[in-house]
Amino acid sequence: MRRYLILAPGQFADDAKTAHGVIRYGSDETVAVVDPALAGKTVREVLPHLPCSAPIVSSVAAGLQYGPTSLLIGTAPIGGKLPAHWRAEVIAALRAGLEVVSGLHDMLADDPEFAAAAFEHNAPIWDVRKPPDVPLFSGAVYGVKQPTLLAVGNDCSVGKMTVVLELARAAADRGRRAEFVPTGQTGIMIAGWGVSIDRVIADFAPGATEQLVLEAAARNPEYIFVEGQGSINHPAYAPVTLALLFGAAPDALLLVADVKRTAIGGFNTPVLPYRELISLYETLCATVKPARVAGLALNTYGLPDDRARYEIERARNETALPADDIVRFGAHALYDAIAPQLHRRRPLAEPPA
Amino acid sequence: MRRYLILAPGQFADDAKTAHGVIRYGSDETVAVVDPALAGKTVREVLPHLPCSAPIVSSVAAGLQYGPTSLLIGTAPIGGKLPAHWRAEVIAALRAGLEVVSGLHDMLADDPEFAAAAFEHNAPIWDVRKPPDVPLFSGAVYGVKQPTLLAVGNDCSVGKMTVVLELARAAADRGRRAEFVPTGQTGIMIAGWGVSIDRVIADFAPGATEQLVLEAAARNPEYIFVEGQGSINHPAYAPVTLALLFGAAPDALLLVADVKRTAIGGFNTPVLPYRELISLYETLCATVKPARVAGLALNTYGLPDDRARYEIERARNETALPADDIVRFGAHALYDAIAPQLHRRRPLAEPPA
Repeated sequence: MRRYLILAPGQFADDAKTAHGVIRYGSDETVAVVDPALAGKTVREVLPHLPCSAPIVSSVAAGLQYGPTSLLIGTAPIGGKLPAHWRAEVIAALRAGLEVVSGLHDMLADDPEFAAAAFEHNAPIWDVRKPPDVPLFSGAVYGVKQPTLLAVGNDCSVGKMTVVLELARAAADRGRRAEFVPTGQTGIMIAGWGVSIDRVIADFAPGATEQLVLEAAARNPEYIFVEGQGSINHPAYAPVTLALLFGAAPDALLLVADVKRTAIGGFNTPVLPYRELISLYETLCATVKPARVAGLALNTYGLPDDRARYEIERARNETALPADDIVRFGAHALYDAIAPQLHRRRPLAEPPA
Repeated sequence: MRRYLILAPGQFADDAKTAHGVIRYGSDETVAVVDPALAGKTVREVLPHLPCSAPIVSSVAAGLQYGPTSLLIGTAPIGGKLPAHWRAEVIAALRAGLEVVSGLHDMLADDPEFAAAAFEHNAPIWDVRKPPDVPLFSGAVYGVKQPTLLAVGNDCSVGKMTVVLELARAAADRGRRAEFVPTGQTGIMIAGWGVSIDRVIADFAPGATEQLVLEAAARNPEYIFVEGQGSINHPAYAPVTLALLFGAAPDALLLVADVKRTAIGGFNTPVLPYRELISLYETLCATVKPARVAGLALNTYGLPDDRARYEIERARNETALPADDIVRFGAHALYDAIAPQLHRRRPLAEPPA
């Protein structure tokens, strides 16, 4: 078991989804967070929804008293680059012999200064996003017996991983074992396995996804719940979305939508209305292996309850599908609504050649 | 200028599209081809459509008498791996001081034996598929002024590169300069620049495509013609197709379709009918930047002329779009049919934020 010191200077409250995910869902303990802007508070004081009383400190040096085993890079900045002013803190952690766990695109172990410090102080570096060698997509996933659900989105960073984890917990509460398939760095840190599909060479991204689903199937769960990435009309990340859509060969989709988004994050590209988005995902699946959207998990974060309820009603009306905000209202209702559809959707074999 | 010895043992006649493309469209000379099964013949005797009288020889050693400067790996096997029995021939070339040019997924320069031989004999290795560091997609491509045409397909290996090169020649014949944008290994070998988009990390594939179009635009051509890859319903390669579709931000699409395909190569996934395929490509473009299919370039290779004419008529009837087989009947008619549509399609700027 790791004891995490989480590095998120200036960003812990607002822009540290990796940190929040690991604190909320990971099995490893967080002993302290580094963010000088919030030093002196606790995690729970800053983010009441996180079940964690760890202190927030001003530096790695100040966090060492809490006995961490590992420094976790707590954010996933656009492009995956390590901010220059964080380097000194990473070096401090390595010099203290801490393992450094990073989900950045930049491979810290390939950085000469980090590599030298890691070697000198016998401190391991785990670059979570470093992809393994994977084969091309083969179609073996079409033989998976367990009903497979894939989260798709109306944008990046809308809560796809959270929704899949909460639904897996709801399944467990109902006595069903759903295997969570991590496809991004935070999911990998939480589950301790997986592949960051966005980091795989484009030709091999569906193959990497297929391997993950096969690995999950080999553990013999009742369901397979695959973390989604991006959105099908994201100008930069849609290829990763499509790699998951074809590589996981799901039997059903769950549309995760932040109701507040009007444009794709960082671009002026409009976010698609639910029905258009559902049609696009289903049309693409139909060309390879049919899968329908079984329900909508809405992200209404920051809205008052009555507005959230209105948005849920609106989604139900527009789509005639189950819809809920499972973070606000709990995951059981949505799980119960979509589970029968999972039972009905048996994986389709490929047609005879 | 290079003088190529092309390595394609046992595969030159049937399965060496890299070799055929470089011989047909490249500005470098091919002095000999290595294929023991065809040794003693000339290229033209085996493949009458190729404008090349180079001899076919049994080994690299036998080809050295023709004064090559470079050994070209002449095929692109599935998965991009170098067949084991070709290794000795690559070593022979390096020991003779030849440059080795490879479009394989395997980076030959990273192979310890090849790297050692290259170093010892001062023989360079050009791994064409090795991607440069590229930024994420930014949207800068939306500011490109030149009308941009992207080839899309009904499958892999249907002739997208050939069609784009032939149309660029037809444009030149009409006094218009169209810049060819290479996105795969053969195109790069022919044009001497470009990026093999299938080899780029998935998150960066649209950004890499955007950089190529910006580079082409900076040369100030009248049109930009982008080589396509894969097909939007290819289970393994569709993410690359989508990276080009969003990353190149084309103003018009050209659908390249092998009329004989019924299933995606290597899979049982059905090839989509023209109208369904056109609708899917146009629907995806419409979510980011609208582009319509301007015409169809059909691959009727191997069919008798009357059957080819029937297939062209069928495509015109089904789609109400210009259609032709430009390899069989010449590129000018199709170019003339689509060029006015290119003029009409000015690049769209992003809407105000």
